Amino acid sequence: MRRSSPDETSLAWMKLENLAPLVARGDVSPVDLVGLAARRIERLNPRLNAFLALSLESARRQALGAERELRSGKRRGPLHGIPISLKDNIWTRGIPTTAGSRLLERFVPDEDATVARRLRRAGAIVIGKTNLHEFAYGVTSENPHYGAVRNPWDTRHMTGGSSGGSAASLAAGIAWGSIGSDTGGSVRIPPSLCGVVGSKPTFGRVSCYGVLPLSVSLDHVGPMATSITAAAWLLSAIAGRDRRDPATLAAPNPPGDFAHSLRRPLGRLRIGLPREHFFDAVSPDVAASVEAAARVIERLGAKIQEISLPETGPSVEAAAEIAFAEARHYHQSAGYFPARATEYGEDVRRLLERGGEIRAADYLADIDRMRQARRDWNRMIEGFDALLVPATPIAAPVLGRKTVEIDGREETVRAALLRLCRPANFTGAPALVLPCGFTREGLPIGLQLIGPLWSEERLLRIGYAYEQATDWHNRHPENI
Amino acid sequence: MRRSSPDETSLAWMKLENLAPLVARGDVSPVDLVGLAARRIERLNPRLNAFLALSLESARRQALGAERELRSGKRRGPLHGIPISLKDNIWTRGIPTTAGSRLLERFVPDEDATVARRLRRAGAIVIGKTNLHEFAYGVTSENPHYGAVRNPWDTRHMTGGSSGGSAASLAAGIAWGSIGSDTGGSVRIPPSLCGVVGSKPTFGRVSCYGVLPLSVSLDHVGPMATSITAAAWLLSAIAGRDRRDPATLAAPNPPGDFAHSLRRPLGRLRIGLPREHFFDAVSPDVAASVEAAARVIERLGAKIQEISLPETGPSVEAAAEIAFAEARHYHQSAGYFPARATEYGEDVRRLLERGGEIRAADYLADIDRMRQARRDWNRMIEGFDALLVPATPIAAPVLGRKTVEIDGREETVRAALLRLCRPANFTGAPALVLPCGFTREGLPIGLQLIGPLWSEERLLRIGYAYEQATDWHNRHPENI
Repeated sequence: MRRSSPDETSLAWMKLENLAPLVARGDVSPVDLVGLAARRIERLNPRLNAFLALSLESARRQALGAERELRSGKRRGPLHGIPISLKDNIWTRGIPTTAGSRLLERFVPDEDATVARRLRRAGAIVIGKTNLHEFAYGVTSENPHYGAVRNPWDTRHMTGGSSGGSAASLAAGIAWGSIGSDTGGSVRIPPSLCGVVGSKPTFGRVSCYGVLPLSVSLDHVGPMATSITAAAWLLSAIAGRDRRDPATLAAPNPPGDFAHSLRRPLGRLRIGLPREHFFDAVSPDVAASVEAAARVIERLGAKIQEISLPETGPSVEAAAEIAFAEARHYHQSAGYFPARATEYGEDVRRLLERGGEIRAADYLADIDRMRQARRDWNRMIEGFDALLVPATPIAAPVLGRKTVEIDGREETVRAALLRLCRPANFTGAPALVLPCGFTREGLPIGLQLIGPLWSEERLLRIGYAYEQATDWHNRHPENI
Repeated sequence: MRRSSPDETSLAWMKLENLAPLVARGDVSPVDLVGLAARRIERLNPRLNAFLALSLESARRQALGAERELRSGKRRGPLHGIPISLKDNIWTRGIPTTAGSRLLERFVPDEDATVARRLRRAGAIVIGKTNLHEFAYGVTSENPHYGAVRNPWDTRHMTGGSSGGSAASLAAGIAWGSIGSDTGGSVRIPPSLCGVVGSKPTFGRVSCYGVLPLSVSLDHVGPMATSITAAAWLLSAIAGRDRRDPATLAAPNPPGDFAHSLRRPLGRLRIGLPREHFFDAVSPDVAASVEAAARVIERLGAKIQEISLPETGPSVEAAAEIAFAEARHYHQSAGYFPARATEYGEDVRRLLERGGEIRAADYLADIDRMRQARRDWNRMIEGFDALLVPATPIAAPVLGRKTVEIDGREETVRAALLRLCRPANFTGAPALVLPCGFTREGLPIGLQLIGPLWSEERLLRIGYAYEQATDWHNRHPENI
């Protein structure tokens, strides 16, 4: 690393928007960034258990290539030479892709997922595959085969899931971006619990090709990062039609650059606060932080207004039933379940068993409701540019906890973490999570913005204005 | 009727290709045709039970309008002023549409199905709605609420179903065309058993909008007629994209005129005879007639060759399971079943009960198989322009019969009538049925041509050449 370059610790915590220009100018070398990531993994991963597989050798080779390209004047964009991590249910050619399962422990794809291919083409460098809830089917990332992912803010606590390792790799300053999948909140719950940014795009915006399916009607793939700008850049790289994922064929083409309007002021935007359902049974510190965020956004020029929405319960239940049935279908068709039921962790096995009980007629009725909800969504929030709600009703629970008590009411950790995220999987609406505070115990609190279909750019703009006006995203876990 | 015009009986049996020019020239008046149909219905329907509702008053008004248009030099095409019937599960504005059920006995749609609207626009005149198996969910047209449809060739025998009344209205010389729906063979089984023509188009060729769903993945709508030319004209009128039926959006646009190449010779066409599965357990007279038809078609210049196909059993089973699940879903979502289970006939009630037992994961696996079969179909019969097979393994059973014995093996009437038709619903391939002989008892035998996707024109061309070379379609039931 050059004399004039920042020291390792400041580099590790540097936001991508500050790092990318240094790489572009040659002040920081991609090879050194890979080396830095490798050292941090070596030091931190034993505590965090964030990575299942490393690809540091190929990362170094790619970094050398990225340097050569830069020296010859070729820059692929803001991700050029930037180390990122990928959730381990995303196919990576030549790199094991276990999906956190025993069943796939020896699976090495001979093809990249579309998002992996697009990121490589954009110059990003994959340093490793992140730990996750087994088969992405759960929200704690307590993996029975590879161990639980631990929260960098307090390693006694969970990261949430299923993209727990991705969030930990960001919160620990190891990678500058990551990609996760989200069927019921998996790219939003871990960012909420780990104090980073997660963006679940509109259904059909990002190809799911090569990402191990959980529930094809509800699966989304989206970026995670330590800043809004980084998330926007990652999303720009992966978004757009892909003939190998028919759901993307409905996406606007071209998808656009999601970062180009981040600095536009918020004046005239109208943001809805659905106090009835999204703020019920939310822990007091979470509610207070989200309400405070609303006041910040109001001061930035947006108009905050209460909005009355129908109950979320029925759509959460229908989404759960769809996921049960489709997950069972995938695992059954693949020949994994029930044939190899003993090779699953107990919780996932139970969910797959339950999936076998769903009747086709009920499933089809749920699908009808989902399609109707997707048709109705924009009209339901008509006149609003976004909804502002908590991402999760609680901060990160202690590892091993099965239930939590909120407002004196006991709820499973699973239900609590899913309930505010699932509606956006059902409607297909874009949703952005970013840090908005800390609990008294010092655990992050996440804010969620949910918008009309295809409104990612506007959500990122609101997120960016909030991020610039606050300091939450600049805090880092101690001892890391 | 003008002096120079043909007598009523010859008019009633006249093929549409001969009638249409007389109407165009003013030699036969649409009003007289409606009158003729009305008199035949009055005389024959008490014996046949083919119609559930008549629309003779509006038909007369339309006929007057059609005459006015002709006098002013406007002719909408070959269907201008021609009386047709529609299966009673097709919405007709202002005309009751019961689908043969008690549940809908008072339902009068305020909108036409797309096919009904297109036919009216093409000048066709709807004289009435035809009896069918309850909710189109069965193959005998023994309707528990409105009585069984009776076969014009022998009223002790069934017409088959579910479009039984449509086939009877044609075989009895009442209408010159009809439209049916086909989920497992319903526009092919009744033509096979009644000696008329039925065309199940490629999945997506004809809009199902406004046709009461049975199983959305397998439902097709298609024409029935007393000649190939008439079927081609009807198909031309109803085919093509319809934004209200998304399945049609994949159809070639424009759909083309299906009659324009009928007279082209068959030379160079290659027709496959899949003896293994489509000729197993077929009654000897049916097999002999179909084999004889193959020899006729060979003499017409086509090349007949044996083709080896995979077993049809698995796709027939998967199609049945899809239909069970989707039918249950529709009736459940509509609030009919199980809420009003007692208002169904016993057989349909049992099928709907069975539909409630299908698991979502198994249904989704069947849907996967169906999609794969649709992708594979053209490759599976590559090099062949059509397959030549029986439409049904038996001629019309006696009413009330539940089982038949073929080759010393007992089979339910339901299974026997469905088994050679269902594969084309599963693959979505076009299939054309036309008369090719009679049993010793004088009951019609049907030939089935199945082609590559979107090859209706070629199937109709083969059918036309065969029709012109034989006399089966010129025979009429006695005493009718």
